[in-house]
Amino acid sequence: MRITAFSDVCLRVVMLLTAEPDLLTSRVIAERVGTPYNHVSKAVMRVRALGLVEVERGRSGGVRISPAGRTATVGWLLRQLDDRPDLAGCETHDGPCPLLVGCGLRGALRQAREAFYAQLDDLTITSMAPGRRPGPVPLTLSRTQTGP
Amino acid sequence: MRITAFSDVCLRVVMLLTAEPDLLTSRVIAERVGTPYNHVSKAVMRVRALGLVEVERGRSGGVRISPAGRTATVGWLLRQLDDRPDLAGCETHDGPCPLLVGCGLRGALRQAREAFYAQLDDLTITSMAPGRRPGPVPLTLSRTQTGP
Repeated sequence: MRITAFSDVCLRVVMLLTAEPDLLTSRVIAERVGTPYNHVSKAVMRVRALGLVEVERGRSGGVRISPAGRTATVGWLLRQLDDRPDLAGCETHDGPCPLLVGCGLRGALRQAREAFYAQLDDLTITSMAPGRRPGPVPLTLSRTQTGP
Repeated sequence: MRITAFSDVCLRVVMLLTAEPDLLTSRVIAERVGTPYNHVSKAVMRVRALGLVEVERGRSGGVRISPAGRTATVGWLLRQLDDRPDLAGCETHDGPCPLLVGCGLRGALRQAREAFYAQLDDLTITSMAPGRRPGPVPLTLSRTQTGP
């Protein structure tokens, strides 16, 4: 079982920004979370649409956490990003799974998914962030080194 | 969030066999669960290694559910098939995620995964099976129509 790669990047972006007082460009965010720029760029658009970050345009622009982003929970964000109705692939290339009628698995997996999210509903993304500890985070990078 | 395609096929195979008194070839199983033969074949090998099915070789051979397969739970099987230590991608193409040191997400997601599996630990795969209800299951297929 795994969360999607896109959910993973969105969480990383918000986590990073909760511990960051300055505006960061998407390129800097990409370097700091170790994720390709185009993935980060899409994630920024999505979490912005969800109200978790604010974007300032222009040469000195960038992305910063919003008040809503500081209080959003991991469970809430993962629910917003989960656009798959079923955890199992209840369809085949020929149509629905032949076992679907009367199958108990679909409902059971949905209940289990609810238990998964419920476990994360009280954890703010802010509380997950590593903060500014020494470690492999490339602290020498700064906004002035890369363009917007 | 989603279970892996392989876990999905393994569950389908065991579900089908719990409701099936006869030996079924992998080709018949593939048709009945609406999944390509090569995927089903790998799934049969895996659930056999886990003791959930028995295989009889030969012209009239096939696969049937084992006593352990009748009592195995969905949670147990998914745990056995889950070979990923982390739900998020805690690595990048350059090495570990830069946020990893001090990151709270890894542990939080693992706890949530445990809640997910715990929800499925009391549900036998047998109880999930749709049985022999009328519906899109191609009941006209029989073992004699396809080779072993």
